[in-house]
Amino acid sequence: MPHRRATRATAVLIVCAATAWMMTHSLADDGDRSDALKAAIVGGTARNVILFLGDGMGDAEITLARNYAVGPGGRLALDRLPLTGAYTTFSVREDNPGVPDYVPDSAATGTAWATGHKTSNGRISTSPLDNRELPTILEMAQARGYRTGDITTAELTDATPAVLASHVASRTCQGPADMRACPKDVKSAGGPGSIAEQLIAHRVDVLMGGGYSRFEQPTEDGPLVLQDAIAAGYRIVTAAAALDYVRKDQRLLGLFAAANMTTEWKGDEAAPYPSNVKTPQVCRQGQRPDNEPSLAEMTAKAIELLDRPGTSGPGFFLQVEGASIDKQDHNGNPCAQIGETIAFDRAVRLGLEFAADHPDTLVIVTADHGHSSQIVPLPTDTDHPSGLISVLLTPDNAPMTVSYGTNGYHRSQEHTGTQVRIAAQGPQAANVVGVTDQTDLFHLMLRALATTSRSSSE
Amino acid sequence: MPHRRATRATAVLIVCAATAWMMTHSLADDGDRSDALKAAIVGGTARNVILFLGDGMGDAEITLARNYAVGPGGRLALDRLPLTGAYTTFSVREDNPGVPDYVPDSAATGTAWATGHKTSNGRISTSPLDNRELPTILEMAQARGYRTGDITTAELTDATPAVLASHVASRTCQGPADMRACPKDVKSAGGPGSIAEQLIAHRVDVLMGGGYSRFEQPTEDGPLVLQDAIAAGYRIVTAAAALDYVRKDQRLLGLFAAANMTTEWKGDEAAPYPSNVKTPQVCRQGQRPDNEPSLAEMTAKAIELLDRPGTSGPGFFLQVEGASIDKQDHNGNPCAQIGETIAFDRAVRLGLEFAADHPDTLVIVTADHGHSSQIVPLPTDTDHPSGLISVLLTPDNAPMTVSYGTNGYHRSQEHTGTQVRIAAQGPQAANVVGVTDQTDLFHLMLRALATTSRSSSE
Repeated sequence: MPHRRATRATAVLIVCAATAWMMTHSLADDGDRSDALKAAIVGGTARNVILFLGDGMGDAEITLARNYAVGPGGRLALDRLPLTGAYTTFSVREDNPGVPDYVPDSAATGTAWATGHKTSNGRISTSPLDNRELPTILEMAQARGYRTGDITTAELTDATPAVLASHVASRTCQGPADMRACPKDVKSAGGPGSIAEQLIAHRVDVLMGGGYSRFEQPTEDGPLVLQDAIAAGYRIVTAAAALDYVRKDQRLLGLFAAANMTTEWKGDEAAPYPSNVKTPQVCRQGQRPDNEPSLAEMTAKAIELLDRPGTSGPGFFLQVEGASIDKQDHNGNPCAQIGETIAFDRAVRLGLEFAADHPDTLVIVTADHGHSSQIVPLPTDTDHPSGLISVLLTPDNAPMTVSYGTNGYHRSQEHTGTQVRIAAQGPQAANVVGVTDQTDLFHLMLRALATTSRSSSE
Repeated sequence: MPHRRATRATAVLIVCAATAWMMTHSLADDGDRSDALKAAIVGGTARNVILFLGDGMGDAEITLARNYAVGPGGRLALDRLPLTGAYTTFSVREDNPGVPDYVPDSAATGTAWATGHKTSNGRISTSPLDNRELPTILEMAQARGYRTGDITTAELTDATPAVLASHVASRTCQGPADMRACPKDVKSAGGPGSIAEQLIAHRVDVLMGGGYSRFEQPTEDGPLVLQDAIAAGYRIVTAAAALDYVRKDQRLLGLFAAANMTTEWKGDEAAPYPSNVKTPQVCRQGQRPDNEPSLAEMTAKAIELLDRPGTSGPGFFLQVEGASIDKQDHNGNPCAQIGETIAFDRAVRLGLEFAADHPDTLVIVTADHGHSSQIVPLPTDTDHPSGLISVLLTPDNAPMTVSYGTNGYHRSQEHTGTQVRIAAQGPQAANVVGVTDQTDLFHLMLRALATTSRSSSE
């Protein structure tokens, strides 16, 4: 598999690049990083924008992954972005958009960062009450001549990839056969159709993820969504090895699983006390089947296809979602959750490596909302969490207890309403520092894209 | 009560100052804050350092307070510091300091930011295994001619205020009668004595908080700690109104409660589902008795006493702890927890107002560790947290559900191991941006204090 070998060679280069970055950004003799920070502040516009979205990746999720993968004193790639802040993620009520909903979902939060507008949970780039289509940052990037990519480890029609290139009343309307909650969005009612249909209709240059089954559904006109995609010039790829043969002049629709892609790591789910307190588990890594590319491999391929070396003008806008951090948090599965966070971090590292060679690239790493997992003390008979726990034995040979208590046993653990981290580098990145709102990220990216006057394009 | 009136007048000024700050720091026409951020980066040393420490104030605790007090789109004073990041808080094992303990306490975390050294949970500015005294930032500030203050809403001998001006093997060794866990630290064994005795022996200029009972204990030599304090030139104050009569040439020992000070807000503790899901509670504000000053009032008095207007050279180092954010998180009491966060934020606002007039002031706002509380969806019969919940009706007339699940019902809810927010402004503040460790805060503050060469003082 030449593609895999190339990726490994790239990985070696990346480690070297990261080391070089660290040396460049190393502390001054007295430890003062003021000048380095000042140098990291760049205004203006960006040739390329890469948004890394860790679904459900709150500060606890980041800390868990760091503790397990590199030790609490080690640093992940996502730790190394120079400019950092927190943003608020609340959504609003469908029946009264003036009233906050303190715990958002990925559809409302995605709509916030993709369009600059708060909406109600479940909506995909549409407004509450009147189901108005809200223009997205990907659509604006296309209008300004940027190539575009949208990749995920979930179904491509899941909320986060959906918000960039579709507009429906409900996130459940993923394929033409799933339109029950979106009666006004079906094509026969004059609507834009399902999320799968809209992703294709938007002519996003690079689409990769899971969700093959949504594209196998027939449209109202008869052919499958997949056939529409082929007619629109997409090359369909369903195995990692085939990515090597996709050319830059083709649109790519990569669908590597019927539903969500397989997690990188596996392990036992958390359970009520005493769970595995006496027998801490070690996570089983390397569990992804060979035919599914890693998120880093998809990121590398997307950048290769989207980049326009030797040209001037707009480059590309790419969204990379680590989707199953959230999904495994819902499952109360700490090993799978951590593995997905690390897989996401490897993709971030690739993005930073590209940005090191292309400093006119805005790189953003953030989450859409907080989630359940918490790092708690080792449980005892008298003192232990009310919910589900699992103890991991880390490479430091220390027990790390993870608790999930936002829902009952065998129920889906819930999102939380905490503010979450946002980090960035490149043009406009300084605007993530401090406390902002998720909608501000849309405006930040739009400023970074502005190649024409804003008044004519907003 | 002239002091109270003066404080109210000051508060009005502060609101105006905050508005002025917002206007100065308002967005450029296109929303780009890059230049404002660059202008906020100041190296060099600080005449004054104010460290605001919200005990247990993780991102969830901040979000809860913001949502309730100013709405999710509003901003607290602590949100307004221009430079922000996250830091790691892990401690180490007593039996093997090379192994991390992923969930720290306030003693180990305090030792980390106060001395730059990781230690094991429970230790107060001493090293694991050999109980070596670790020099503190307050001691170094004193050596460089700074006046010093250390104030809290907990007992003055509690872990956070203790780490700055005492060294014992266990945080429990608060008064001379509490030395069971510190046999080597008692004076008759050649040790420095209890935390209360050491705070006085350190001649910290301003000490305020609760914990009167610790200072009423007799020392090994016979007299009470309070008598030692008087002999050391301290003015003892036990009621808020008496603060008006403390002069700048006196040391101040303010002890306003036998143990912890009273919380500002009250409300019902969280309970297992269904708890108060059908009858959301509204927090009862203004519950602090008149004889206890607010944290903001203590902060105003401390700054008034410590500031040296009309002089040049070193000013002061002041630590201000909002202690009962943590304690009410332990209790699973969302109203009291939020009230303490808001009381802390009012103190922060005062510090920012002072810094607006004294830009050579380093202001830091951070937490020592994460805690239990989470904002979760409105519970139902089928989907609800495993632990304790309480629903608050916010001023936006929306239900906000708070969950505590890190320990059982009627047990103390536990700390968590997540990274937490750190924010700053003034000299050296840029060094909080990104991901740092709690020990880095010590070095940051030390650089800000450096009036002599570091080699001679470290």
